[in-house]
Amino acid sequence: VSAPALHILVVGAGFAGLAATRKLAGNKNFRITLVERTNHHLFQPLLYQVAMAGLNPSEIASPVRSILRKYPNVTSLMGEVTQIDRANRQVTLDNGEQTISYDYLVLAVGGKTSYFGKNEWEAHTLGLKTLDEALAIRQQILHSFELAERAESESERIRLMTTVLIGGGPTGVEMAGGLAELTRSVIRWDFRNIRPDQARVILLEGSDRLLSAFPEKLSKYTADRLTQMGVDVRLHTRVTDIQAGEVHIGDEVIKCATIVWAAGVGGHPLAKQLNCDLDRGGRAIITPQLHLKEDPRVYCLGDMAALTETLADGKTRALPGVAQVAMQQGALAAKNIVLAANNKELLTFKYWDKGSMATIGRSSAIASTAYANLTGFPAWMAWLFIHLIYIVDFQNQLLVLSRWAWSYFTWKWGARLITRVPKIDATLKANSNEGSPTDLSATEKTESSGNPSSGD
Amino acid sequence: VSAPALHILVVGAGFAGLAATRKLAGNKNFRITLVERTNHHLFQPLLYQVAMAGLNPSEIASPVRSILRKYPNVTSLMGEVTQIDRANRQVTLDNGEQTISYDYLVLAVGGKTSYFGKNEWEAHTLGLKTLDEALAIRQQILHSFELAERAESESERIRLMTTVLIGGGPTGVEMAGGLAELTRSVIRWDFRNIRPDQARVILLEGSDRLLSAFPEKLSKYTADRLTQMGVDVRLHTRVTDIQAGEVHIGDEVIKCATIVWAAGVGGHPLAKQLNCDLDRGGRAIITPQLHLKEDPRVYCLGDMAALTETLADGKTRALPGVAQVAMQQGALAAKNIVLAANNKELLTFKYWDKGSMATIGRSSAIASTAYANLTGFPAWMAWLFIHLIYIVDFQNQLLVLSRWAWSYFTWKWGARLITRVPKIDATLKANSNEGSPTDLSATEKTESSGNPSSGD
Repeated sequence: VSAPALHILVVGAGFAGLAATRKLAGNKNFRITLVERTNHHLFQPLLYQVAMAGLNPSEIASPVRSILRKYPNVTSLMGEVTQIDRANRQVTLDNGEQTISYDYLVLAVGGKTSYFGKNEWEAHTLGLKTLDEALAIRQQILHSFELAERAESESERIRLMTTVLIGGGPTGVEMAGGLAELTRSVIRWDFRNIRPDQARVILLEGSDRLLSAFPEKLSKYTADRLTQMGVDVRLHTRVTDIQAGEVHIGDEVIKCATIVWAAGVGGHPLAKQLNCDLDRGGRAIITPQLHLKEDPRVYCLGDMAALTETLADGKTRALPGVAQVAMQQGALAAKNIVLAANNKELLTFKYWDKGSMATIGRSSAIASTAYANLTGFPAWMAWLFIHLIYIVDFQNQLLVLSRWAWSYFTWKWGARLITRVPKIDATLKANSNEGSPTDLSATEKTESSGNPSSGD
Repeated sequence: VSAPALHILVVGAGFAGLAATRKLAGNKNFRITLVERTNHHLFQPLLYQVAMAGLNPSEIASPVRSILRKYPNVTSLMGEVTQIDRANRQVTLDNGEQTISYDYLVLAVGGKTSYFGKNEWEAHTLGLKTLDEALAIRQQILHSFELAERAESESERIRLMTTVLIGGGPTGVEMAGGLAELTRSVIRWDFRNIRPDQARVILLEGSDRLLSAFPEKLSKYTADRLTQMGVDVRLHTRVTDIQAGEVHIGDEVIKCATIVWAAGVGGHPLAKQLNCDLDRGGRAIITPQLHLKEDPRVYCLGDMAALTETLADGKTRALPGVAQVAMQQGALAAKNIVLAANNKELLTFKYWDKGSMATIGRSSAIASTAYANLTGFPAWMAWLFIHLIYIVDFQNQLLVLSRWAWSYFTWKWGARLITRVPKIDATLKANSNEGSPTDLSATEKTESSGNPSSGD
């Protein structure tokens, strides 16, 4: 009927890729293919709540093809792009046998956890980037508490109830707060042998404060609140080694069941395929119009791209790796592709910083905007409201809201099921019992075990 | 203060074990330890909805220690009993180093999938007894559909969209109905290359009718409804061999991506540890008072036990392996333990059959009671109501109700996320492409692909 539609290939259904796809989706001049390694868009800011058993995976993630079902010009494929051939404008998929050619390519596959050259630490730690990783953290912690209830010595019990979080950014802070609540409050009445106040949550940060992207006052507030909640917050603390179930800080060795690595993000390996300039962190360097400077047909967005902005005072800074940047870049990339297809001049990216926020725990959060800083309950309400609005799926907005209301009033977190083998098994093995078998039925129950019988 | 409490050890937190534990929990003369292999009680009748991505795991399962948190005389332990020593009244746990001694033992660990001696079939099929197995079925089916969307030949696409269900009991029927809805309706608008009417659901039953425990009229109704929904129902059909992705029926070979085994349940291996008489299926033979005839201190309940009842017409039959039997046995075992502890005469088990039901699909179910048989919408409403009532957790009752209402009106099933590597990988590998790489972007989109664009 008309000229053949231009084919836009979008790789990655995170905030940037989805924003670009949605912006182009209504436009009949384009066909869009969206390739995503998993089959879902993930609302990453709430991922730590899946790890903490507060939310279900399906409440913060939606199948990509459901989100895009009403756009006939969008095809969604599950797959991983492994090679990029800019000269022939095509990419190769994981099985090595299928290729996809494009008129414009939008790459937005996110960042990759970085271990600062200590890749051997990966085997002993858990990350928090995907649903699968969130579920792995959940299984590890729930499992270790079950084993603690059966543990035969006090030291073994305490080890099984110790979690070390490495990195005092938003992920580390939100996990620490959530974990303190889970262990001190939510499961308080559930165990007989464990004393919940024996659970240790240790948050390690190398610099002199938590949440370094926020104003100093808010960092201080956060550290104080976490400490009140029972988290062992340690600043100026550099990890020197990690072994199975052991975090070394110089001569000190912390024995624990779970180690969460939330300390570093670097560029995605796929950026190397682009044959373009990368920054020191391995991110592809892009123009203010968001495409590679080497190739106006390849856009590169979000955590896998490097772009600096000039602030009001004339200083420059690298754009932060947050959802807002990704979403705004996705929208502008889509606009620029339309402009480019019409031989018009491209627009320049200008980041509109609407402010940042982080939650610490129940009724407690911080928020920082150009106009004001908020802490405590007002910040927490703002956090709830904004996060609910940005969840993609209407059903999930309802579900998350009702689940939050439920757990707020009942202290019950629903998703505490152990359904899979823990990823890091070694740290869950109890130290071998050298003597004769122990009879668990002889365990004395103490009134201090947090049992509500007396006051119930 | 008083005489030491008797120690009751309950193994298994299914319907029988949980009923026994709850009945004893208030009684100060007893201490109860409940050992469960997972950490949760599972509402098994809705497990197929987890497999079909209609419900989340946490909506049909609750942590055992949460359910029992208010009873100070109940200790819950996660673990697996591996040995039973009736002479010394103690059991050994999985690590081999911990034992638990008892005054009375209540064994209720359920049944085990039986392959009629063809244990090599297990590797190629998926069962449906645990949450983990339900999630494995879900991942396998979702994954195979994603690969079908990328498939290069029509035959490969159809193979990837074919599911074979072996066994025409309630599990097979409910899965067949759910799967037909999922593939024909729920995902109808989500794919571009797949035609949902190419999806094949094949239900194989060896005998002359489905649901042999129900009246013949209802079996007929079920088969007709399933056929209308697009299920290929085959009676009198015996599987002769199973290979990876292949079901053999004599000379016919059905190539498929997913094979679900729902054909047989036998006794649990733990019954062999009891050193007592077993029936042909490996179930422990118990007295009408529900303990082993060899040992009045060991009760054995539910699917792992064999007991016959005498019907009104004087005939005898083996009690069916259903939740009602398990719950009623759990309650009576608890009563009998109290009676035994007080040297009183034990009560005899009398099964009160409240009727059976099975759901076929949206607005369609069958129910059979002593007074009437129901089909269609009335049966479906009864099914919904009764299943909601029996879900243990109040929050889960609300969640399941709202999720059912949502999916009924919107045709959206929320939990369609691929989060883990599929269990049976071999059948998901595409046949090797001998020629040159295929460019997927060249795929022609047809209007027959179920796309709602025209009417949207």
